[in-house]
Amino acid sequence: MATTVTVPSASVPSTPLLKDELDIVIPTIRNLDFLEMWRPFFQPYHLIIVQDGDPSKTIKVPEGFDYELYNRNDINRILGPKASCISFKDSACRCFGYMVSKKKYIFTIDDDCFVAKDPSGKDINALEQHIKNLLSPSTPHFFNTLYDPYREGADFVRGYPFSLREGAKTAVSHGLWLNIPDYDAPTQMVKPRERNTRYVDAVMTIPTKTLFPMCGMNLAFDRELIGPAMYFGLMGDGQPIGRYDDMWAGWCMKVICDHLSLGVKTGLPYIWHSKASNPFVNLKKEYKGIFWQEEIIPFFQKATIPKDCDTVQKCYLALAEQVKAELGKIDPYFIKLADAMVTWIEAWDELNPSTTAVENGKAK
Amino acid sequence: MATTVTVPSASVPSTPLLKDELDIVIPTIRNLDFLEMWRPFFQPYHLIIVQDGDPSKTIKVPEGFDYELYNRNDINRILGPKASCISFKDSACRCFGYMVSKKKYIFTIDDDCFVAKDPSGKDINALEQHIKNLLSPSTPHFFNTLYDPYREGADFVRGYPFSLREGAKTAVSHGLWLNIPDYDAPTQMVKPRERNTRYVDAVMTIPTKTLFPMCGMNLAFDRELIGPAMYFGLMGDGQPIGRYDDMWAGWCMKVICDHLSLGVKTGLPYIWHSKASNPFVNLKKEYKGIFWQEEIIPFFQKATIPKDCDTVQKCYLALAEQVKAELGKIDPYFIKLADAMVTWIEAWDELNPSTTAVENGKAK
Repeated sequence: MATTVTVPSASVPSTPLLKDELDIVIPTIRNLDFLEMWRPFFQPYHLIIVQDGDPSKTIKVPEGFDYELYNRNDINRILGPKASCISFKDSACRCFGYMVSKKKYIFTIDDDCFVAKDPSGKDINALEQHIKNLLSPSTPHFFNTLYDPYREGADFVRGYPFSLREGAKTAVSHGLWLNIPDYDAPTQMVKPRERNTRYVDAVMTIPTKTLFPMCGMNLAFDRELIGPAMYFGLMGDGQPIGRYDDMWAGWCMKVICDHLSLGVKTGLPYIWHSKASNPFVNLKKEYKGIFWQEEIIPFFQKATIPKDCDTVQKCYLALAEQVKAELGKIDPYFIKLADAMVTWIEAWDELNPSTTAVENGKAK
Repeated sequence: MATTVTVPSASVPSTPLLKDELDIVIPTIRNLDFLEMWRPFFQPYHLIIVQDGDPSKTIKVPEGFDYELYNRNDINRILGPKASCISFKDSACRCFGYMVSKKKYIFTIDDDCFVAKDPSGKDINALEQHIKNLLSPSTPHFFNTLYDPYREGADFVRGYPFSLREGAKTAVSHGLWLNIPDYDAPTQMVKPRERNTRYVDAVMTIPTKTLFPMCGMNLAFDRELIGPAMYFGLMGDGQPIGRYDDMWAGWCMKVICDHLSLGVKTGLPYIWHSKASNPFVNLKKEYKGIFWQEEIIPFFQKATIPKDCDTVQKCYLALAEQVKAELGKIDPYFIKLADAMVTWIEAWDELNPSTTAVENGKAK
C-alpha cells in the first residue's frame, strides 16, 4: 500500500516589490511592444530611459508609466565637461541612468528582451527573481553543489563549513536569456540558428577570484553596494570598440566585489531574447576587443586592490590607475578609458554626495 | 502566418559505452534490489565490490553480473602491512577498489542510490552522463554563464576568451542526488523532511582555486589522470571520525587538479537517493569533523604544491607532508592520516607500476 506523506512546506515569505527602492534603467526603446509586454511587471516602478542616439528623435513611452528620459543634451547639461565619460550612440550610455538614480537597486534590461516562460508555461517575473537574488546572501567563499542554499527546498550540503553559512551580501544578480544566446560575432556566424532552449532552474554564486562574462541585457544590482563600479566604459561613437561595455563593468565589478567580500549571482531569471543583432556589425564592433580581451582578462585575474581601499570608489580609482599603467601598453585607448574611469567616479560623487562607505561587505 | 523553421540538429555522436575501460566500484551491497534496479545499465561493466565489514558474511550478487569481490582478508593478503591505509567497517574502503582496478575510468556509487527519473519521466542513465562529462573538456579557468559550453545547444558566451576555449582535460564528474539530499547530521536533524525535488539541467566546471564538498555517492573519475589522489582516508572503525572520506578525497583531489590544470565537473547526472542515514549515528561520526573542517578547509584553500610536482603521486606526497606539518597541530589523527597517505601512494605504485606521469593536463 502506498502511503502519501504530506510534507508541510515551510512558510516562504513573499518577495517584497521594493517599489520605492528600485529603478529600471533602459537604454533607448526602439521597440514599442517592449513596454506593453512588460507592463504588468514594470508599471509599479520608476523607469529611467537613457536615449543613446540623436536627441532630436522622440521616444514614445506608452501611457501609465512613471518615467524620466535623458537624451544627450540632458547628459551634457547635467554633467558638463564630465559628460565625456558617457558613451554616445551606444547602449553603454545606460550607466548614466545608474548615476542619476536615487534608489538602492537597479534593474537594467534591453529593449529586445521580452517576458520568457518557465517550463510550465507561466510568464516569468524576472524582476521578482532578481529581487529574491539580491535580498538573499551569496556564497562566494565555498561552492555549494546544490546551488543556492538559501532557496526554498535547498540548503548547504554535508561538508560545507558552518562558519561560512551566513554568506556574503549580494551585490549583483546576473540573469540569463532563452532563445537567442548572447554569443560573440564569430560564434553567431558559425551557429546562426542556435537557440538557447535549456531552462536551467538554478541560481548560483560565482566563486571569489573567478571572472565571468557579465551581460548587461538582464541585470540587477545593489546600487548602494556596488553602483560606482558599474561603469560601462567608452564604447560606440568615436571609440575603437563596442559590445564590451558590460564585459568591462563585469570585470571591474567582480574584482571589487572579491576585494570587499560581496557576492555575485548568476542563473535565474530568464528573459526571452527576441532577436539576434547583426553579426557583421557586431564583428566590426568586437574586432579589437577579441584580441584585447586575451590580455585584459589575465590583467583582471591578477589585479589586486590595496587593502586600505574600503569603498567602491577607492577600489575603482585604484583599478583605474592599474588600467592606465598596465593596459595602456596595449593601446592608447586604455589611457583614455582609465581617465574616463576617474571622471566617472568624480561625476558619481557629485551626483551622489552621501554615498555610504562599504567596508568588507559588513557595513550598512 | 506562422512560419515553421526546421533547425537542422548538429549530428551528436552517441556516447561510447567504454565497456572495457570502466569499472564500477561499490562499497558493500546490503540492498539486494540495488543491482537488479541498475541491471540494464551496469550489466555490461565489470564490478568491483569492496566489503566493508565482517569478512565471514557473504554478499549475494545476482546472476549475470561480472564482478570481483574483496573482503578484509583479501585486502590484508594483497596489501600486507600497507593494508593499514584502508579503512575498516566504513564505506571509505571503496578506494581499495580504485587501486586494484586496471581500467582508465571508475564510477562509484552507494547501494542506497537508485535510478532517478528526468522531468519527462525517463530513467536516467547516470553512467552515460558521467562518461559524457569525462570525455568532454572542462573550463576551470573562466566561468561560462551558459554552463557546459561543450553540451549540445550551448557554447561559449560573448566575452569568453578564445584562447581558453579548448578547455582542460576532465578528471572528475560529480553527480547529484534527487530525493534525500546529502546533508550533514545537524541539517538532517533540523530539516528531517526536506527532499531534493529540483532537477537542475546543468553540468558545470568548478572553477580553479575553488573548493567544494565532494560526495562519494555518485562519482566518476579518470583513474589515469587523478586516481592516486582519490584516497578516502582513515574513517570508521578505530578512527575518530567518519563521513569525511569523500570530503577528504575531494579537497586533496581539487588542489591537485588545480595544480595540474585538470577539470572537475558537477551537476548531472542525478541518482535517486533512497533513504536518509540515521542523523544521530551521523552526528557521532561527524562530530569532530564539523570542528576540524573549519581549519582543514582554510588549509586546503592556501595549500600550494611545489612547481616541480608533475605527477599526481608527487603532488599527493607533497600534500601529505603539509598535512602532517600543518594539520598535525589540530590532532594526532592527522599525523596518522598523513602517514596513511604516504602508505596509500606506496601501495598504489606497487599495484600500478606503469602509471603514466601527467604533466599540466597536457600529457597522455
